[in-house]
Amino acid sequence: MHFTPRLQQLLAALRCLPGVGPKSAQRMAFYLLDRDRDGAGELAVALRSALDEVGHCEHCRMFAEQALCTVCADKKRDAGMICIVETPADVIAVDDSGGYRGRYFVLMGRLSPLDGIGPLELGINLLERRLREETITEVILATSATVEGEATAAYIAGLAEKQGIRATRIAHGVPMGGELEYVDSSTLSLALSARTQVPTDAVD
Amino acid sequence: MHFTPRLQQLLAALRCLPGVGPKSAQRMAFYLLDRDRDGAGELAVALRSALDEVGHCEHCRMFAEQALCTVCADKKRDAGMICIVETPADVIAVDDSGGYRGRYFVLMGRLSPLDGIGPLELGINLLERRLREETITEVILATSATVEGEATAAYIAGLAEKQGIRATRIAHGVPMGGELEYVDSSTLSLALSARTQVPTDAVD
Repeated sequence: MHFTPRLQQLLAALRCLPGVGPKSAQRMAFYLLDRDRDGAGELAVALRSALDEVGHCEHCRMFAEQALCTVCADKKRDAGMICIVETPADVIAVDDSGGYRGRYFVLMGRLSPLDGIGPLELGINLLERRLREETITEVILATSATVEGEATAAYIAGLAEKQGIRATRIAHGVPMGGELEYVDSSTLSLALSARTQVPTDAVD
Repeated sequence: MHFTPRLQQLLAALRCLPGVGPKSAQRMAFYLLDRDRDGAGELAVALRSALDEVGHCEHCRMFAEQALCTVCADKKRDAGMICIVETPADVIAVDDSGGYRGRYFVLMGRLSPLDGIGPLELGINLLERRLREETITEVILATSATVEGEATAAYIAGLAEKQGIRATRIAHGVPMGGELEYVDSSTLSLALSARTQVPTDAVD
């Protein structure tokens, strides 16, 4: 069975979405054409308008529609702290945790020399200028717990140190609610070696 | 964390896709803006162009860009057989099975009086005209094996009978490769009651 040209084009275009293969693309295309033409029209408009208007914050590289993102434009945020993350989704995750009221810097990736991703691609020069010119007291390294993430964190910690700024790494260990039985061995080994003294008042 | 207005609009629009919730929508939006802006632009164009150009075949209600779909326009197809299906996706499924070279009729749903879906919504008047005016020898009922699907099949079989046309129903039973242990009991009970005589030459 051959699809008509526009349908073929739509099926191919839907497959640019992450996690969408040929079967899902067909399901989506048929659903939109059959049941939700208004929704499809709105999606086309929303895509075009997001592409035209959404860029990156010139201060932290987060998605933004103005020069500054909502976090960098927010004067109530603690300007002395920078949390370094790999992706815009990480900013959302950290911010939604509610435990952080400082600013961010989004690397849009992590150091990976083999893929041609060096400090320049991660906007490290922009970060260095911020470390030099702003009054930063702490850099929180929240890159992923992978080899590249750790290397990226170590590299940025070095930069912070040069400016005399304290660099901290988010804690890694057993997740809350995680049963030891189901935690992978490298996490468990790390949780053991990074064990902390139980405060004595907890024993009372 | 607040998303910027266009990003919010894009997240809402992506959720019109079937199977896409808030988390997937965020993943898709960030992926498109971050890594595949060209793909997103093509998707916007493809959606608009499909909405503008893809309609329904005036003969069988399948998706089509001309008055007739590719199947109805194909003179080499057996015009004496109509396979009745519920959705365009079913046409693709039947056609890809390779076992059928006739024509189709797409109901775009199934009889469901409680949801206000009667014969008119399913284009039964169009189907009746085809049964009356064309030289049809067989109507194959390939609606789904649900209560509504069966009711729809029975209704159309009645129409075919009135015109003296043979109506057949696709076989239901244990799927190929299906192990009896994992087949649900209603399918198994149906497969038992619809058992067929083993041809004697198979015993040789």
